[in-house]
Amino acid sequence: MRSCGVVVEYNPFHNGHYYHLEQSREHSGADVMIAIMSGHFLQRGEPAIMDKWHRAETALKNGADLVLELPFLYAVQHSDYFSQGAVQTLAEAGVDAICFGSESGDIGAFMDAYSHMNVHQDEFNASLRSHLNEGHSFPESSRLAYESIQFPSGAVDLSQPNNILGYSYVKQIMSYAPSVTPLTIHRKNSHYHDEDITGPIASATSIRRQMLKAGTLTKETEQTLPSSVPSLLDDYKQMYGCWHEWEAYFHLLQYKILTMDEDTLRCVHGVDEGLEYRLKRAMKKAVTFEDFMNRVKTKRYTWTRLQRTMTHVLVGTDKEDARRGLRETPPPYARILGMNEAGRKYLKWAKKETRIPFITQPQAMQHPLLDLEARAAAAYYSLFPAAVRVSRLNREYEAPVILPSHP
Amino acid sequence: MRSCGVVVEYNPFHNGHYYHLEQSREHSGADVMIAIMSGHFLQRGEPAIMDKWHRAETALKNGADLVLELPFLYAVQHSDYFSQGAVQTLAEAGVDAICFGSESGDIGAFMDAYSHMNVHQDEFNASLRSHLNEGHSFPESSRLAYESIQFPSGAVDLSQPNNILGYSYVKQIMSYAPSVTPLTIHRKNSHYHDEDITGPIASATSIRRQMLKAGTLTKETEQTLPSSVPSLLDDYKQMYGCWHEWEAYFHLLQYKILTMDEDTLRCVHGVDEGLEYRLKRAMKKAVTFEDFMNRVKTKRYTWTRLQRTMTHVLVGTDKEDARRGLRETPPPYARILGMNEAGRKYLKWAKKETRIPFITQPQAMQHPLLDLEARAAAAYYSLFPAAVRVSRLNREYEAPVILPSHP
Repeated sequence: MRSCGVVVEYNPFHNGHYYHLEQSREHSGADVMIAIMSGHFLQRGEPAIMDKWHRAETALKNGADLVLELPFLYAVQHSDYFSQGAVQTLAEAGVDAICFGSESGDIGAFMDAYSHMNVHQDEFNASLRSHLNEGHSFPESSRLAYESIQFPSGAVDLSQPNNILGYSYVKQIMSYAPSVTPLTIHRKNSHYHDEDITGPIASATSIRRQMLKAGTLTKETEQTLPSSVPSLLDDYKQMYGCWHEWEAYFHLLQYKILTMDEDTLRCVHGVDEGLEYRLKRAMKKAVTFEDFMNRVKTKRYTWTRLQRTMTHVLVGTDKEDARRGLRETPPPYARILGMNEAGRKYLKWAKKETRIPFITQPQAMQHPLLDLEARAAAAYYSLFPAAVRVSRLNREYEAPVILPSHP
Repeated sequence: MRSCGVVVEYNPFHNGHYYHLEQSREHSGADVMIAIMSGHFLQRGEPAIMDKWHRAETALKNGADLVLELPFLYAVQHSDYFSQGAVQTLAEAGVDAICFGSESGDIGAFMDAYSHMNVHQDEFNASLRSHLNEGHSFPESSRLAYESIQFPSGAVDLSQPNNILGYSYVKQIMSYAPSVTPLTIHRKNSHYHDEDITGPIASATSIRRQMLKAGTLTKETEQTLPSSVPSLLDDYKQMYGCWHEWEAYFHLLQYKILTMDEDTLRCVHGVDEGLEYRLKRAMKKAVTFEDFMNRVKTKRYTWTRLQRTMTHVLVGTDKEDARRGLRETPPPYARILGMNEAGRKYLKWAKKETRIPFITQPQAMQHPLLDLEARAAAAYYSLFPAAVRVSRLNREYEAPVILPSHP
């Protein structure tokens, strides 16, 4: 059975994602599409608009056959760890190819960049370090360092942030699983952080922004979603009273930060260089999440980096545990969020080859990463009324979403 | 200037408290009545129905001249530490007498019990230890141990829980400040944990219960309160949207416990003997605070002991910090919550004699106990909407309540 992996967040699942799955299946000639998806919290350090189970369901209804969970610890990280966790898990699942969307749609351009980087790695590192020492943020220092090593024409331009994730996938594939074929397809909506909806293919950012602002699915947002998605999003909001966003968690974050002493706060993954004092000072005055972030943000602590750290505060990610967890190669298990009949057959077929356990229920295994997953779920669901909260928490220990195969 | 101290919680201030202040002033012949009061959280491990500033105001309006704050760390403790913190602070404030309410109203009976205990302390300790080892709770083991040493007739019966706090005050006075005169007055409502209101003097427990159940001040509760109190309670609820009770904090406690790992939970004051596992297990299922407590409670972990520990979880009291803090004798400072002109004059007059600083604003001093106080305030106010929450938090750093003297 031929299989192709995709690395996704589906926040929410939109037409661009549908196109990506369809094109990836075609390009790779895969029988089975395997998506590795962030759970309740996302790479940019935000709560997903809808929980991982419902997002897995949208994926299965729209082209995926098997949805694996990228463990929280890898999901809420910069691109290096994020792609490490995702690519290694897909490789352990035995995928033949991994296909990502890009502006160029040219895998050769990514391979050229990879070869060039291999030769100029020392030069790049030295440049990066010097820019960091000058006080630039990590993304800005990276951009300057990439510029300094002058890529050949034809290679993707890594000083463009949009190319970084794709490049990280290629790098992980080449170094960890060279037998996996890297593929890329041209992304239809080229600017995927666009803030406005301009047609049936729009960025997830613009779709979320409209949904959250309107508090409902407008006609404009609906046109950007596959037909099965709007009712799932609507039902979720109806049933649980909200779509999730940072502002709704602000009271919990404020409560938590103001009832932790500095020593305890310093033990949270990402709280470094005296950030604990800054956080406490800002929290004594802030009245919204945005207000708080603006009080804490600096040139070095970018919004995204801070958001990730705030997710780790909210969830309680211990610094030492994180260090240990991120050192595990490959990730210690792969958890199945959902599958259809094709996905189930594939898993059965691939089972002999996989070195890590593929688990359907976290109680099958004792692992600190699974404890962390339970903490992330507790934080995520803490907005709900008590009875709903507890029932959703227990969802964590039930079987994956199972759907029939695509017609 | 003659002064008399009282140890209080005023949750809420009722006619019995008024009578206590009045009688204490008369018995002691004091010019100035000094109340040391628990802050936002109380000895039994509960949030006070109304915050400490408003409770200090009710005290000043009804007979107290100076209200000091019993630091959170001493307030939310069993009777030994509670009375240690309270009596030592009053002694440092230079009081001539300390007067408490009791069923007997006979200070000689407390002194007799103290003398008897002095002689039989070893015997008592051995008996206590053996009952604890048999698996009895601390209060039950104490009761049995007190029974075993057979008090002379005329001494107060320490196997009756109602006598324990008074006895603890006498013990602290005799051992720490023998120049202070212990006094007691007969308590009008003899059963101060009574659950029903039967007249104008009722227990705080029965008053709270009715208020919280009805969500308003009924005629029956109003008759138990001095005339200035109902409007203060009403205004508080109007302004801040609630009277405080544990159930309202349950979502925060659940969120906090479920996002702490066992190692971190074990660092909280009072979380011993594997309680961390019990807490996490129960929290995964509990839908109310009462439900949670019933799941965790055992013969050894009584409701009150657990409530105190839950307060320390909610506020984030570190075990090591608590150990260090409770070792300080006397408490490192006394914080003034409120005073009238007589209180202010007294403070000025007594200043030369006091060995510890009497502070009006916590920023006057750097101390871990004051950091803990700020955390307690943050937890206490976390129920309010963001802007109100932040403004109440900042109240922590403003001047005490100042009222004119009693007419």
